[in-house]
Amino acid sequence: MLTLDRRHVTDFLNAETRGALAPRVRDAHRTLLNASGAGGSETVWRTMLLDPNDALLADLAQTAAEIRERADVLLCIGIGGSYLGAQAVIDALTPTLLKPDGPEILFAGHHLSPRYHTELFKYLDGKSVYVNVISKSGSTLEPSLAFRFARQFVEERFDDPGRRIIVTTGPEGGLLNPLRDANGYRKYVIPDGVGGRFSVLTPVGLLPIAAAGIDIRSLFYGAVDLARTLNAPDAEHAALDYAADRYLFHETGYKTELMAVMEPRLKGIGAWWQQLFGESEGKQHRGLFPSVAQYTTDLHSLGQYVQQGQRTLVELFLRVEGTQGPVVSELADNTDQLNYLAGKSYAAINEVAYEATAEAHAEGDVPNWTLTLGHLDAQTIGAVLYFFEHAVSVSGYLLDVNPFNQPGVENYKQKMFSRLGRPD
Amino acid sequence: MLTLDRRHVTDFLNAETRGALAPRVRDAHRTLLNASGAGGSETVWRTMLLDPNDALLADLAQTAAEIRERADVLLCIGIGGSYLGAQAVIDALTPTLLKPDGPEILFAGHHLSPRYHTELFKYLDGKSVYVNVISKSGSTLEPSLAFRFARQFVEERFDDPGRRIIVTTGPEGGLLNPLRDANGYRKYVIPDGVGGRFSVLTPVGLLPIAAAGIDIRSLFYGAVDLARTLNAPDAEHAALDYAADRYLFHETGYKTELMAVMEPRLKGIGAWWQQLFGESEGKQHRGLFPSVAQYTTDLHSLGQYVQQGQRTLVELFLRVEGTQGPVVSELADNTDQLNYLAGKSYAAINEVAYEATAEAHAEGDVPNWTLTLGHLDAQTIGAVLYFFEHAVSVSGYLLDVNPFNQPGVENYKQKMFSRLGRPD
Repeated sequence: MLTLDRRHVTDFLNAETRGALAPRVRDAHRTLLNASGAGGSETVWRTMLLDPNDALLADLAQTAAEIRERADVLLCIGIGGSYLGAQAVIDALTPTLLKPDGPEILFAGHHLSPRYHTELFKYLDGKSVYVNVISKSGSTLEPSLAFRFARQFVEERFDDPGRRIIVTTGPEGGLLNPLRDANGYRKYVIPDGVGGRFSVLTPVGLLPIAAAGIDIRSLFYGAVDLARTLNAPDAEHAALDYAADRYLFHETGYKTELMAVMEPRLKGIGAWWQQLFGESEGKQHRGLFPSVAQYTTDLHSLGQYVQQGQRTLVELFLRVEGTQGPVVSELADNTDQLNYLAGKSYAAINEVAYEATAEAHAEGDVPNWTLTLGHLDAQTIGAVLYFFEHAVSVSGYLLDVNPFNQPGVENYKQKMFSRLGRPD
Repeated sequence: MLTLDRRHVTDFLNAETRGALAPRVRDAHRTLLNASGAGGSETVWRTMLLDPNDALLADLAQTAAEIRERADVLLCIGIGGSYLGAQAVIDALTPTLLKPDGPEILFAGHHLSPRYHTELFKYLDGKSVYVNVISKSGSTLEPSLAFRFARQFVEERFDDPGRRIIVTTGPEGGLLNPLRDANGYRKYVIPDGVGGRFSVLTPVGLLPIAAAGIDIRSLFYGAVDLARTLNAPDAEHAALDYAADRYLFHETGYKTELMAVMEPRLKGIGAWWQQLFGESEGKQHRGLFPSVAQYTTDLHSLGQYVQQGQRTLVELFLRVEGTQGPVVSELADNTDQLNYLAGKSYAAINEVAYEATAEAHAEGDVPNWTLTLGHLDAQTIGAVLYFFEHAVSVSGYLLDVNPFNQPGVENYKQKMFSRLGRPD
């Protein structure tokens, strides 16, 4: 389902150093399995996959079916890990231009744009709207603010606001639980021990994803299968190779990891990966800076830099098989000189572009991996999610940081709340 | 219209070194003005602004009016500089959710996705389609391939394909000129001496932008005004300060420049800037790696890294004034504890988030500038475009590279065409 090609990586790593790393990689992997490292109590995103809650999956699917039947729009209110996962999976698995059946999935409270939020409520006017507010504490500024406006909107327009508002929050405490109790909203629980960036396979991600018409059981079990495979103390797996390689690149002075997706629908997976790696590793003045590009588009923008700029980049290609696309036909009039491509599909041509690029970048001293998805389907995407979650945990432990906290996010928040005059 | 705040920059630069740079900055600026440096013949993007072609602007506006009247979709076929500028300006100046009057502006041939191009032609079926194909040579793989399919689509469905297809290409030569001659397509010229990434204010960008209902005269003259201001050998201007600062950061070991837009509609400007700086500077193993974030969204993803990761980042905030957005009201039920914000608008809250972030990142040793747009309108965006075009030319000359070529883009292309079996 997933394969990692390290062809353009190995030449850049000292084989002896890389080999000598194996025991440390195994230790880091076991530390994760045993929940014995820094932030070990925050690894429930892994253990919950080893003991799947089928009843919850069925319950979420049922609520999603109601939303799909009754709503024109599902407005998902959340920021960071409370929306990136859902957006990534929905973008990957639903059409880009053709309107799918069922409700439109929109996001709010993921920034503070005055323009967007003005437009949003005009856009929603006259539509049947459901709201899913997603926040563990209920006190994060962006979503709590958007939810205040969304609540007012729903209460003013519909006679069943209690049915149309669904809260996804912590088991207890926070600000959303009292609101829920007072208004009779439905509730899904963000389990303790699951940080935002690891929460896509909890109701945080699963409800919006199911409402978009995606089979969440396949998605979930795609992750379960890989979690089980990796749940062995002596497991050898591409996710561990990737973690080890990138750690060595970090230690030898590389600064930036560029994920290059070969399919535009995967750009959201890039944004989700960017949070996962940036927040998990970027502390104590360590970590590779995660950046995302979409090829071949950005070969005509970042490509020049990747080929010939400062040599501090590593690159991860994400490519996908399974759809051929339009096939070039032979034309009598060959004025555009493309007849040499006759019989080739878009997929075949895109594939050649990828191979040429991976080789050219390696020759330009940019080491690169390729992660290939056998299909663009829910099961495979589930595996992709777990692949990176496991890998970042291991690479975080190799870097000797706690991969499960994000202390630096508080710095601007404290200043912001102080300037806004928030009461303690 | 545009102001650059260097408050969080100056502490990170040695004042003496920075002061001593002034004569070199002036030289680089004059080299651009005199077209006497590397790639000097490729600076017509500047001189054309000093001698505005009003007749061309009027002609483009007239064609755009026809497209707006007759088309459901304008399909723009181009890649890199042939689409990033149009997309940036259109995203900045048109609504995100509310369908504007006039045709939908779609892009094609900006990548090789089999899924997108399959969907695209299904989506276009039954709609009134105009096509604008944009390519200097006509031989770039992605757009030439998409244009082959788009031509077939238009020829099969409409009895006036010659009217519906508009070619934007070089004055002569290439592959699109013969196609145009044979089929009677309308044509706009990409002037010699204007590289792709500097072409947004030629018909390359202006026709799609006008078709989106944007006042291209205001846009163009926003750039003209700034080009005239900067067309003085002794000019002192924020664009030169920005170029000089970032050069010094580069020389002292910074690796990455992160543009953080405070308004999601500006994300396309970020993508355009990324090409402009990446392709202009990223050569001879030099240049800052350009990356783009959208705040406050990405404060909950990249924010941790920016605050506490490897200290090789500089940051450029792009913020915009002029729209207040929804205003928080006092609620009797303050369960969400947001009444302390009563009377504040989204814009005011976003502004505080920005100020807090700029200060927190500076305290975390990330130098940062802020470029403020007084309004989100065509004239201001025109100025933004010229600001960066002038700045990158100067910073390129400071780096001692030719800012106007992109030799590294050929590496993967040669391998790709060879593997695809393209005849010479």
